[in-house]
Amino acid sequence: MAAPGLQRILGIDPGLQTTGFGVIDADGPRLAYVASGTIKTTGAGIPVGDLPGRIKILFEGVREVVQTYRPACAAVEIVFVNVNPQSTLLLGQARGAALAALTSEGLAVSEYTALQMKKAVVGHGLAKKEQVQAMVQRLLQLPGVPGKDAADALGLAIMHAHASVSFAAMASKGSLLRRQHAQFKGGRTY
Amino acid sequence: MAAPGLQRILGIDPGLQTTGFGVIDADGPRLAYVASGTIKTTGAGIPVGDLPGRIKILFEGVREVVQTYRPACAAVEIVFVNVNPQSTLLLGQARGAALAALTSEGLAVSEYTALQMKKAVVGHGLAKKEQVQAMVQRLLQLPGVPGKDAADALGLAIMHAHASVSFAAMASKGSLLRRQHAQFKGGRTY
Repeated sequence: MAAPGLQRILGIDPGLQTTGFGVIDADGPRLAYVASGTIKTTGAGIPVGDLPGRIKILFEGVREVVQTYRPACAAVEIVFVNVNPQSTLLLGQARGAALAALTSEGLAVSEYTALQMKKAVVGHGLAKKEQVQAMVQRLLQLPGVPGKDAADALGLAIMHAHASVSFAAMASKGSLLRRQHAQFKGGRTY
Repeated sequence: MAAPGLQRILGIDPGLQTTGFGVIDADGPRLAYVASGTIKTTGAGIPVGDLPGRIKILFEGVREVVQTYRPACAAVEIVFVNVNPQSTLLLGQARGAALAALTSEGLAVSEYTALQMKKAVVGHGLAKKEQVQAMVQRLLQLPGVPGKDAADALGLAIMHAHASVSFAAMASKGSLLRRQHAQFKGGRTY
């Protein structure tokens, strides 16, 4: 990275069919778009029932994004239990493959809920997909509206940039421990 | 591999806390034990709540097993929805990381249920853990009883060896397509 304080962040919105990714450069509160897109595991000559094959595509896709853009850290959406338990199991496997790709490339991974991301990007946790897309476009000064999965991933990267700035500010005020505690309140226990 | 027809098979019983692995050499119906053990993600200086850190240990552990023993293929247990949806989500992520490690190392992965494995190893699908351990010990002529997770993993490798032999036998009788269909009846659709 060129400038000190500049941090390249990769956001990942995991899914078995479609995983969104978004890369931004954050320099304190200043954000710059780098790249975004999706990794799809369907229609690539892989049968829908070939889960190992689809996991391979997803893992290698995330790894390729890391190797191409060389982010300093990653922000991954915390997924929740679906009404359909079978979907929960599949989503879990997709997220596990994405985490494996990120951590095996040496990235520190932070986890945020969609609620936290929407609060940070739109201002409230009940924001619709379109509102996230519109705000991501505005915050990163994009020439067009990003796709939904890419917008969520960029939103996660923005969320992490905000959290890093707040964290640094709190730390400089000597309240590091309190902030760490607050940060994990919304998280999940395993 | 030295002899033609000799196939080294890696069985994996995935879990977030403990993943069992078992490696065997199969030469037609003849089986030989190579190695087995577990990959644990707890107590390694990693906080229980650090899911990305635990996924990294699991992924790298499975990859190390592959790189050490160089199996030709892998057999992974099909996991099921747990009564606790949160556990389902965590198990899913563990399995996704294991599949990512296997497929990114170029292994073909077959999937079997615990029921299929128990039928193949013990003779009926409702066998208890101890029965699987005792039969695995007998079939592989082990000097001691293998641990539960390692026994399940070795059982999956044995299951795959049996399936390969049956598959070859059926194929030579010209009923390849029928057998393929039957093989996938017990599987899952995604």
